[in-house]
Amino acid sequence: MRHTISVLVENKPGVLARIAGLFSSRGFNIESLAVGETEDPSVSRMTVVAAGDDAQVEQVTKQLVKLIDVIKVNDLTKESFVQRELVMIRVAVDGESRSRLVDLVDLFRAKVVDVAVKSVTVEITGDDQKLEAFLDMVRPFGIKEMVRTGRVALARAPRERKA
Amino acid sequence: MRHTISVLVENKPGVLARIAGLFSSRGFNIESLAVGETEDPSVSRMTVVAAGDDAQVEQVTKQLVKLIDVIKVNDLTKESFVQRELVMIRVAVDGESRSRLVDLVDLFRAKVVDVAVKSVTVEITGDDQKLEAFLDMVRPFGIKEMVRTGRVALARAPRERKA
Repeated sequence: MRHTISVLVENKPGVLARIAGLFSSRGFNIESLAVGETEDPSVSRMTVVAAGDDAQVEQVTKQLVKLIDVIKVNDLTKESFVQRELVMIRVAVDGESRSRLVDLVDLFRAKVVDVAVKSVTVEITGDDQKLEAFLDMVRPFGIKEMVRTGRVALARAPRERKA
Repeated sequence: MRHTISVLVENKPGVLARIAGLFSSRGFNIESLAVGETEDPSVSRMTVVAAGDDAQVEQVTKQLVKLIDVIKVNDLTKESFVQRELVMIRVAVDGESRSRLVDLVDLFRAKVVDVAVKSVTVEITGDDQKLEAFLDMVRPFGIKEMVRTGRVALARAPRERKA
């Protein structure tokens, strides 16, 4: 099963290497990983997507917590969460296919970010399902280049009790 | 100076740990890192943002190329490139401030992805400048949680010569 793990860490050199090393030493292949700043510049948030059974993942998260500079580990898979990913993709076009691509871009609420004679670069965000649907539709045009951020996720806000 | 480095790697366990280890052993702090699949499931693309002078970065990229499972390294800073990042942010709201936040969301072409009684979760994509401007505007509301993908980038399409 795929797990989405959110890790808050001190923003220091070497933290990422230690965390990536822990996953690989357990034989986990990280499917995607995204690290960026949080509101506090001294703290980064890492979102890791990795496949493994529940027991394996529980063991890794326990070991993550013990690492120096790791502040908090959260296996979001156990909770309700919002997930998003950003994909940029350079699609081959010619005079005829360009407008068909632009129609798809509008349909998926994607955005054109660069236009050249023989290609159009598109930015799209969404959950896995939406992104895969879009990629299935543009594949026949010819994908020249693609970059994905990997998934980021936030737990849904707890449903506050009414007063 | 900030460098944006794009690295194509074999999608195998341990690659990420080796690359992160190489940066940290040189004393580089990775500001952001995003790893995701490419069109070829056996190949991943990593986008690394790290600060360093040109000579330091050139040395690291040379060493990256020598690592097992590294296919290609590209310091995009030398080229014209499109950069984007995705940020999800849970913003504190009350009955009065919610509509002011929604106005900002529309203005920045961001999207609301989750609504609760005391918070609204927003998704926004853009380059550094746009994201910082948005964050400056929502900070007074109160940021409850934030996750960033880190920057991804693609070189702009080469300007094809006319026939």
